[in-house]
Amino acid sequence: MSAEVERAVRRSLADYCDHVDRYDVPGILALFAPDGWYDLGFGRVFRGPVELRALFSRVEVYRATSHHVSNIVVDVDPAGDAAISRAALYAYHVRREDDSEAHVWGQYHDRFVRAGDRWLVQSRTLRMAAERGTRPEGGRVTLYEPLPRGI
Amino acid sequence: MSAEVERAVRRSLADYCDHVDRYDVPGILALFAPDGWYDLGFGRVFRGPVELRALFSRVEVYRATSHHVSNIVVDVDPAGDAAISRAALYAYHVRREDDSEAHVWGQYHDRFVRAGDRWLVQSRTLRMAAERGTRPEGGRVTLYEPLPRGI
Amino acid sequence: MSAEVERAVRRSLADYCDHVDRYDVPGILALFAPDGWYDLGFGRVFRGPVELRALFSRVEVYRATSHHVSNIVVDVDPAGDAAISRAALYAYHVRREDDSEAHVWGQYHDRFVRAGDRWLVQSRTLRMAAERGTRPEGGRVTLYEPLPRGI
Repeated sequence: MSAEVERAVRRSLADYCDHVDRYDVPGILALFAPDGWYDLGFGRVFRGPVELRALFSRVEVYRATSHHVSNIVVDVDPAGDAAISRAALYAYHVRREDDSEAHVWGQYHDRFVRAGDRWLVQSRTLRMAAERGTRPEGGRVTLYEPLPRGI
Repeated sequence: MSAEVERAVRRSLADYCDHVDRYDVPGILALFAPDGWYDLGFGRVFRGPVELRALFSRVEVYRATSHHVSNIVVDVDPAGDAAISRAALYAYHVRREDDSEAHVWGQYHDRFVRAGDRWLVQSRTLRMAAERGTRPEGGRVTLYEPLPRGI
Repeated sequence: MSAEVERAVRRSLADYCDHVDRYDVPGILALFAPDGWYDLGFGRVFRGPVELRALFSRVEVYRATSHHVSNIVVDVDPAGDAAISRAALYAYHVRREDDSEAHVWGQYHDRFVRAGDRWLVQSRTLRMAAERGTRPEGGRVTLYEPLPRGI
């Protein structure tokens, strides 16, 4: 069973990247549970389809994005109806307005829930190891909340 | 069965990257079906071993390349003798002549066919989300045909 | 059995990246066999927990690192108690002292051994296709030993 869940989680992560990079917002939203949420860090949590749609509509500012997920680790809940995953992300972005670049290197920490024969994102938490070319907001030094580190 | 096919497809993609990055042209060609083809976009299709050899021999202009494939999704044909895959690519290149760099971020869209106990590339289609440092040809703005995008 | 071993190897590689990027040296060491070794190339081999600890403690010079492993290929020994793997690596580093960057693109060549129900790294050999921003030592042109290439 665990191998099946892992395949479903891997596929969801791959489809997520594909949908973001094609700017297919309905496709992205269909991967989330109805009350699913996305935690961008620094307290910015987007919950449910209305907030998620608003969040992912911001991808429009990019002329192109390319998301690459690897290092995927999946742990299935003993009850078999939930799973936790961790994955590494490298994403490249080019802004429409000035052709400037942004690179991010980080991790997704997700919780998936079973919905019939599908697995949906209950929550996605993004934390970054590093970023270059991003435009931090609110007087912060980074746009994204840093991944905790031993030193 | 599907999990077995997926493993074969993943391995073929991994071996392809390895062979390109080692500039092992016979190794690359052995991954393709006899009438296999590679679609670089903008109508540039290389079909069969003679054309594919000519295409991959161009890798010689690079002092180094490094291909990284992730986000792999495989769908097996109901009949079980063909499979469709989509994968994300990030590749880095350094030219021999001037040590200049090229980065590409895109997707492979492949069709695999069963040949005995092996799975061979019947077709590979490359589309790019973005590229930097490439040298477009034929008066075009990009070297590669762009990945379709919602906006 | 082979699929199980492959999952264990993939997980070990993913955990390795996570532990390095969090600068969790005990976590890294726990992935290696007691007499495990890491071959950085040019004759630099670090064997056993004391040498490995010294090696990985050098990660402290980086403010952030992000390791991304893909293209994983695993071959299990017929006896079932060892496995060989090859994987592509892209890693990004930011130095603490001057915020300067280093990128590396290469391959891990590993041998895993079974230890009860776990699989441990018996040996890891790193070879690079390319590097940018690294600081080569000992009068060499590159910091890492190059991946062999057909030309």
